[in-house]
Amino acid sequence: MTFTLEQAGRQAWEWLEAASRFTETHDVEREGVTRLCASREHRAVLDALTHWMSELGMSVRMDSAANLIGRYASADPSARTLLIGSHQDTVPSGGKYDGMMGVILPLALVKYLRENAIALPFHIDVVAFSDEEGTRFSSTLLGSKVLAGRFDPEMLEATDDQGVTLEAALQAFGCDPARIPEDRYRSEEVIAFLEAHIEQGPQLEQAGLPVGVVSAITGIERHRIEVQGMAGHAGTVPMALRRDALVGAAEVIRHVDALCKETDDLVGVVGKIENAPNGVNVIPQTATLSIELRSPDDDIRRHARRQLFERIDASLEALGLTYDHAQTYEQGAVPCSPGLIATLEAAVRESGIEPRVLFSGAGHDGLAMADLCEIGMLFVRCRAGISHHPSEAIEPEDLTVAVEVLAHACQRLADRQPSA
Amino acid sequence: MTFTLEQAGRQAWEWLEAASRFTETHDVEREGVTRLCASREHRAVLDALTHWMSELGMSVRMDSAANLIGRYASADPSARTLLIGSHQDTVPSGGKYDGMMGVILPLALVKYLRENAIALPFHIDVVAFSDEEGTRFSSTLLGSKVLAGRFDPEMLEATDDQGVTLEAALQAFGCDPARIPEDRYRSEEVIAFLEAHIEQGPQLEQAGLPVGVVSAITGIERHRIEVQGMAGHAGTVPMALRRDALVGAAEVIRHVDALCKETDDLVGVVGKIENAPNGVNVIPQTATLSIELRSPDDDIRRHARRQLFERIDASLEALGLTYDHAQTYEQGAVPCSPGLIATLEAAVRESGIEPRVLFSGAGHDGLAMADLCEIGMLFVRCRAGISHHPSEAIEPEDLTVAVEVLAHACQRLADRQPSA
Repeated sequence: MTFTLEQAGRQAWEWLEAASRFTETHDVEREGVTRLCASREHRAVLDALTHWMSELGMSVRMDSAANLIGRYASADPSARTLLIGSHQDTVPSGGKYDGMMGVILPLALVKYLRENAIALPFHIDVVAFSDEEGTRFSSTLLGSKVLAGRFDPEMLEATDDQGVTLEAALQAFGCDPARIPEDRYRSEEVIAFLEAHIEQGPQLEQAGLPVGVVSAITGIERHRIEVQGMAGHAGTVPMALRRDALVGAAEVIRHVDALCKETDDLVGVVGKIENAPNGVNVIPQTATLSIELRSPDDDIRRHARRQLFERIDASLEALGLTYDHAQTYEQGAVPCSPGLIATLEAAVRESGIEPRVLFSGAGHDGLAMADLCEIGMLFVRCRAGISHHPSEAIEPEDLTVAVEVLAHACQRLADRQPSA
Repeated sequence: MTFTLEQAGRQAWEWLEAASRFTETHDVEREGVTRLCASREHRAVLDALTHWMSELGMSVRMDSAANLIGRYASADPSARTLLIGSHQDTVPSGGKYDGMMGVILPLALVKYLRENAIALPFHIDVVAFSDEEGTRFSSTLLGSKVLAGRFDPEMLEATDDQGVTLEAALQAFGCDPARIPEDRYRSEEVIAFLEAHIEQGPQLEQAGLPVGVVSAITGIERHRIEVQGMAGHAGTVPMALRRDALVGAAEVIRHVDALCKETDDLVGVVGKIENAPNGVNVIPQTATLSIELRSPDDDIRRHARRQLFERIDASLEALGLTYDHAQTYEQGAVPCSPGLIATLEAAVRESGIEPRVLFSGAGHDGLAMADLCEIGMLFVRCRAGISHHPSEAIEPEDLTVAVEVLAHACQRLADRQPSA
């Protein structure tokens, strides 16, 4: 009696439902899932994962950074390792799937392989990264940086809202942070890192496709702009003499939106604005805005930045306004491996689905793992493109498709391996 | 030995400095003046005014709404009355001149008239209105509404931040609120209401003029707009699928500014904006804005409103955005009396100054007093157009000019009175 892909998809759905119960919140449907690094909920979900992994005959260990790693070992002990996984943590009141789906799907894959006695010439290490969102310690990509050997020990001094350091939290969780350097994988032992993740956007849903192949993880830059005008009585200062900071801010917002709409492979937003003094009858004195630009192509992003600030300069000067500007963040784009993109495309096609290649506008553990090995990502459609929200949702059948694609991809990777 | 206009101007300056010490704040130069209705500071400034008025031979009374009224009586007991005054109260951390200058200048005028034995065929009632700003009880124009017979007794139930009602505050201040209806003047006994006030704008300063004549007190309307978009991950939603509320808000801001700049006798501002969820990497879901339009001509303002909302409708529809709209306030414009405008213009010219007629973009006690009698206003230039701020400032010499203009205006009104 075989274990079907449909059964594997249903198993994934059940595990995901079970995992969503390990949350700080009381009502998952309404309040979503809140599960932070080195918390009681983290402990509970690792216990469950450990149980499920053990039942699959996997060897399970937690490393010194609270990553959980379950190995589905190849018959050849000297084989290399395919890493597949995602993060266990969530944003506050996040969804059930962002992160955890990428931990559960490879477990469903392992169950499918095991039940159908499919042998592979490599180990599969399923990873539940301890922390990707950085919700508790602002320690974005903590787990994947550790595996990739990119972990900066200074990060151990970061504190949560209660003043607890990451170091103390890891110790209380049963980890020895001093041994984190030992957790890194060596490049020569790793074949690749694969991650399945919800798209967090509406493109697959709009195209009617259950899955898509990621071309690159976006590069991101952020800026803080303070437009400086002159406050005044909104009734008594003639229009020609006004220097209204919010009018300048409106120009900045318009330029960001227009430039991104007219440029391929570029998205951007002014997500945040603070206006002062913010009174109905006072001419705004200062308006402070965030600007974010993202592109899978760093050249496009940098060129857009230059164009944007030329436009901002011209508009604000014409309005008699000045501004302060600080770039607050920059992260280069990380391309997925062309070979893995081709492998995943072929695996999607083999599953009877038109392969769609799209870039990831969100950051993922692959940003760090790319320093260790080739990376590949499979996106699963999510409802209305919503993520980081209690209403985050997926179609249960898509889990079946995702397991099938991963199975085909593994077979194709196996075919590429030198025979032992 | 005569008392000169220069001496009257210096006296006004000294009284203003003295009056500014009656404030909740500790450091007037840095923190400005905070003097609220029916407060300890109100009591102290009325005591000082009473003292100064009494020294000028004026009869002084406080009415049931805490207005202080000092009469410089004509020799003819049956004469009519010229009301001159302004408000004693301030906004929190306001300036020394907004309000109080209009109380002190007529006292300096009375001193000038008295010392030079200038007799007038009318009484002058100098009024220190108890509350115009409405800082404590949101009771804008309280004092002038009482004198004009427009006071609504329901206002007595208004409360301050500590839950004290206006009624209780007036009682504690020694007033009998039940007798407020008796405080109204009768139209037939009043010649006019004159008010001297700082301009609160930069027009006189830019024109190099110490004073100006007000044509009308602006009409004002306010609106609240909530632009409704769709939140989303700022990296994963393609530009073409976004409905970014802040991009819509930027269009609203731009339309208000452009329309007011292209329309004579219209000013307007988006002074307030709240953006949600206001995260650097989240597409804005809702942006809530205030819109304020002001004009001395109600037709101009109403026509502008129609144009504005046509433009907003078109822009937001093109962006796929909807909006909620509520008009939150409307106050019609109040013209100054043409006769008093002409009188003040002639008085300004007689003082050797080119008369400049300008409208008041701010509200004043004349808005209420216009129901009782003809109103006229003299603006005194203020530094950089700044008001409602500790750095509010005037040129001391301008007080001399203002006293001279008021003296000439009184003489001209006297010449117009039927002889007794």
